Amino acid sequence: MGETKKIEVMESVYAKNIETAEKIQKEFDKNGVFAINVMGAPGVGKTSSLIEIIKRVESQTYVIEGDIESSIDTQKLRSLGINAAQVNTGGACHLDSPLIEKACAEIMPKDGVLFIENIGNLVCPAEFVIGEHKKMLITSVTDGSDKPYKYPLAFEKADIILINKMDIAMYVDFDKKYFLDGIKKLNPAVPVFEVSCKTGKGFDEVAEWIEQTKSSFIKK
Amino acid sequence: MGETKKIEVMESVYAKNIETAEKIQKEFDKNGVFAINVMGAPGVGKTSSLIEIIKRVESQTYVIEGDIESSIDTQKLRSLGINAAQVNTGGACHLDSPLIEKACAEIMPKDGVLFIENIGNLVCPAEFVIGEHKKMLITSVTDGSDKPYKYPLAFEKADIILINKMDIAMYVDFDKKYFLDGIKKLNPAVPVFEVSCKTGKGFDEVAEWIEQTKSSFIKK
Repeated sequence: MGETKKIEVMESVYAKNIETAEKIQKEFDKNGVFAINVMGAPGVGKTSSLIEIIKRVESQTYVIEGDIESSIDTQKLRSLGINAAQVNTGGACHLDSPLIEKACAEIMPKDGVLFIENIGNLVCPAEFVIGEHKKMLITSVTDGSDKPYKYPLAFEKADIILINKMDIAMYVDFDKKYFLDGIKKLNPAVPVFEVSCKTGKGFDEVAEWIEQTKSSFIKK
Repeated sequence: MGETKKIEVMESVYAKNIETAEKIQKEFDKNGVFAINVMGAPGVGKTSSLIEIIKRVESQTYVIEGDIESSIDTQKLRSLGINAAQVNTGGACHLDSPLIEKACAEIMPKDGVLFIENIGNLVCPAEFVIGEHKKMLITSVTDGSDKPYKYPLAFEKADIILINKMDIAMYVDFDKKYFLDGIKKLNPAVPVFEVSCKTGKGFDEVAEWIEQTKSSFIKK
């Protein structure tokens, strides 16, 4: 099969995804839902961060949990009384819009903030819109200071970046200056919050950013 | 475009990749090269582990460094006198066989061990063969104990698993039993080594496994 044919197929997949994403976002706007696509490598603490954020956000909150397999995180969220839906991709490395459309039909978010936790992957999720208003990238001090240089797209596309596990930064030689310099080159204006799910550090500010940003999208 | 057409295209991409992988592996066998596909999430310490392993392996060693962008790791390896080639995928989330074919033409490995460090991604690299004899999965205590349950394919396909950053296990509530139970369900016979790039712990045993496994593949 020729290169052109392959490219055409990929374009068609992307186009279908964007079309559905636009449709979803219109529904969100109509229903007063501010949607955040939460991305990050495996193990950076995406679900734990969401728990800390949800504790502090005043709006009603909803979570769509994306995983390849398992519903460990959804069970954890539900046990805390959080309205969460599980999406399993069964192998696929990122969420796409049709999956989100189905999950929304299940939890029917209204007048609040919807967090969509993507598959743990620092590469592919950044390439696919899923109806979100904003993209949150969660990173961690344990993953090394060179990540913005090696995985630029996720950092470039993020509207807000969290650096998690600050409580153990001293044990892992995290070079904060190098890390932040890398972000600045890709995305000079992005707000960066240093947080710790263990101590709660930084999450008040993250919750404030969410409420403020929501109010500029959702008018009612 | 119909679902069938999309599936056909994917099958064609996979088939071409497998065909090239088989060709590469024949070249490796002819040249006495034992090839290891090194996989793991971003920031688990793939390059740092390779440095510790290469110090201890008696055979001649070669590295092909896969990154989306940058050549940070290749520069680090070369500064240590290691024969390394950089492969940049320019966005793609995993290495494929044609990329490895090109890189081999550059470093021409012969009579030794070739480590191919894949893109930091716990999902996609596990789906693509690249001519390797064995797959090494590197994980880290900082990434949480639930990873085998959430990202089963990489654990299922691994021929050897390293658990890195054991020196900070006490700071991150790593539940080793839960982690190992998850691996056991997917891949009961896989050898698991607890290592630390900071202290060197466990790498003598990893190097020994490599030399022994190599000798069963490469006869000369």
